[in-house]
Amino acid sequence: MTRFAARIRSAQERMANEGIDALCLSVGSDLPYLTGYRAMPLERLTMFVLPVEGEGTIVVPGLEAPRVETDGMPFRVQGWGETEDPIAIVDAHLAGSGNVLIGDETWSRFLVDLQDVRPSRTFGNAGELMAHLRIRKSADEIEKLLSAAATVDGVVGQLENVRFSGRTEKDVAREVTERTRAAGHDTMDFWIVASGPNGASPHHEPGARIIEIGDAVVVDFGGHQEGYASDTTRMFVVQEAPAGFDEAYGVLHRAHVTAVDFVRPGVTAESIDAVARDIITDAGHGDLFIHRTGHGIGMDSHEHPYLVEGNSQVIEEGMVFSIEPGIYKPGEWGMRIEDIVAVTQDGVERLNRTDRAYRVVA
Amino acid sequence: MTRFAARIRSAQERMANEGIDALCLSVGSDLPYLTGYRAMPLERLTMFVLPVEGEGTIVVPGLEAPRVETDGMPFRVQGWGETEDPIAIVDAHLAGSGNVLIGDETWSRFLVDLQDVRPSRTFGNAGELMAHLRIRKSADEIEKLLSAAATVDGVVGQLENVRFSGRTEKDVAREVTERTRAAGHDTMDFWIVASGPNGASPHHEPGARIIEIGDAVVVDFGGHQEGYASDTTRMFVVQEAPAGFDEAYGVLHRAHVTAVDFVRPGVTAESIDAVARDIITDAGHGDLFIHRTGHGIGMDSHEHPYLVEGNSQVIEEGMVFSIEPGIYKPGEWGMRIEDIVAVTQDGVERLNRTDRAYRVVA
Repeated sequence: MTRFAARIRSAQERMANEGIDALCLSVGSDLPYLTGYRAMPLERLTMFVLPVEGEGTIVVPGLEAPRVETDGMPFRVQGWGETEDPIAIVDAHLAGSGNVLIGDETWSRFLVDLQDVRPSRTFGNAGELMAHLRIRKSADEIEKLLSAAATVDGVVGQLENVRFSGRTEKDVAREVTERTRAAGHDTMDFWIVASGPNGASPHHEPGARIIEIGDAVVVDFGGHQEGYASDTTRMFVVQEAPAGFDEAYGVLHRAHVTAVDFVRPGVTAESIDAVARDIITDAGHGDLFIHRTGHGIGMDSHEHPYLVEGNSQVIEEGMVFSIEPGIYKPGEWGMRIEDIVAVTQDGVERLNRTDRAYRVVA
Repeated sequence: MTRFAARIRSAQERMANEGIDALCLSVGSDLPYLTGYRAMPLERLTMFVLPVEGEGTIVVPGLEAPRVETDGMPFRVQGWGETEDPIAIVDAHLAGSGNVLIGDETWSRFLVDLQDVRPSRTFGNAGELMAHLRIRKSADEIEKLLSAAATVDGVVGQLENVRFSGRTEKDVAREVTERTRAAGHDTMDFWIVASGPNGASPHHEPGARIIEIGDAVVVDFGGHQEGYASDTTRMFVVQEAPAGFDEAYGVLHRAHVTAVDFVRPGVTAESIDAVARDIITDAGHGDLFIHRTGHGIGMDSHEHPYLVEGNSQVIEEGMVFSIEPGIYKPGEWGMRIEDIVAVTQDGVERLNRTDRAYRVVA
């Protein structure tokens, strides 16, 4: 049985257990996880309709049908013509299905149309069911995540010899993306270069600010390689650290190391967050750590499990996620250290392996 | 009144006319069109809630709130914390709104959650209302689209001197994207390089096939520059055209020129499609023209109006769309010519301006 057939069978078993009649997947990573095919995120509907029993059908724009690899695959493909109504086609495939799950990232436009055409049918989110399948990575998946991590680690090494001062954030960000593509990434997903006070905005968009001597610079970047995501953050200090930075960095470094070392099967997602948060809070910076400690990663940059207060999910072998505590001092600086880690049988393995100290650059 | 205030007022006027209580916009271009802010397409909810009267609120993850430019803007921003429930916050902003429109590209997961929390509320698609606002471009928008078109036109010129034979499609595609970024594009959206028989798949993904002498190669690429999209297709023939290619290309070229010349205010979208299709059909290739003739373009690569049979929308000054007939001979070759055109007061202006003949390359 192929990998995809096994995954589809797992989905159907779980659907049967939960009383689900059909699963509908469109854009996003759930579809390629089950079928190997990634839908184009455009206005023409692609939807995989999988009944709880029997073979599913990928309903796809006719001109994209040749993109779908079907050799030996356990599903049918139905192309729809430019003047056909894909909603009616999906509705027909769903005939008799009252209880349907729909992929989380599906355009809501299509859900509204499907609801309008058959108001008696109920739609729930497929997220939980798909996360259950995807959250424990296979050895092959972890190898791909490690390979993607090695690429961005290599770029971090290159950046140690790059001049930051006198350049705009945007220019440094461009260099980061070019180097990462050249090192083997197929696509870039984000490229945060946040200098000086901009560092205090965790998702800062690199802009026209010129980096100066005495700035701390957050560099957080990632993309996709062979279908799997990378994501790492390292700190760069331009010649000399700003006031208060070294003390806080010592705390952050300790929080990161301690949280990583704490990870093992059996602990909860929120307890990992608490380990990092308690260290930062005890040092008096708790109100400056304004986000969760991490997120799962795999085919998506962000996926389950989320390391956040309130998530009591138990960590298991094969889960892969980021550990990325941060401290953000408004108007002055920000700092974050981020590694991807994989849960092993009795502990954890860091997939990002560069030194966690900050780099001093020119 | 700022551009954004004017657009929001237009949206509210139309909402009032149609009996809509509130508009909810999340990921996609509708949100930046009204507010200047583009939501990160991630798992944390961003949603602009605009009531039919009064000021709207962008509900945004707290760590992304600093990204929202608010100076002089006619809306509020409300950041939500990592342990808060953004659905409850949006629901509170919607209090009393029974008839709500939701942005087409919103993740369906959020729509399902909003429906579950308040089953009495009805949600419809915001697409039509937003298209009404966005479909006629301002002079400033057309200038940006022209600038993006000039960039890809420049790359087409560069490609005339590039060797195709002996290289993989993927390698040529990489060169196309690198050249386009270097020429000024901020992001790339697609990069089709489809050689020989692969050309017969209109949305072919560039792969490992090595381009040979005698291949026809479809090169269709575009991206974003200053927030506006580009999209052009030109044909490249490696030394000598394959059998039957020249005859068909003559037909395709005539279809393209005739369709572009036909465009003016007052004709319908489907009539432009018919003009191109009739020429190709009359020449005996109608069954090989397997897609619509074009799509609108602006902040999105694909938006209204769609030039397709069944769309009787009347063309107006300021509309901007592609004209891209194609002929696809399975197992042998494919061909497509694509320009973006802008509708003027009494006719049409091509924004892509390179020669429509195919290029002979090495």
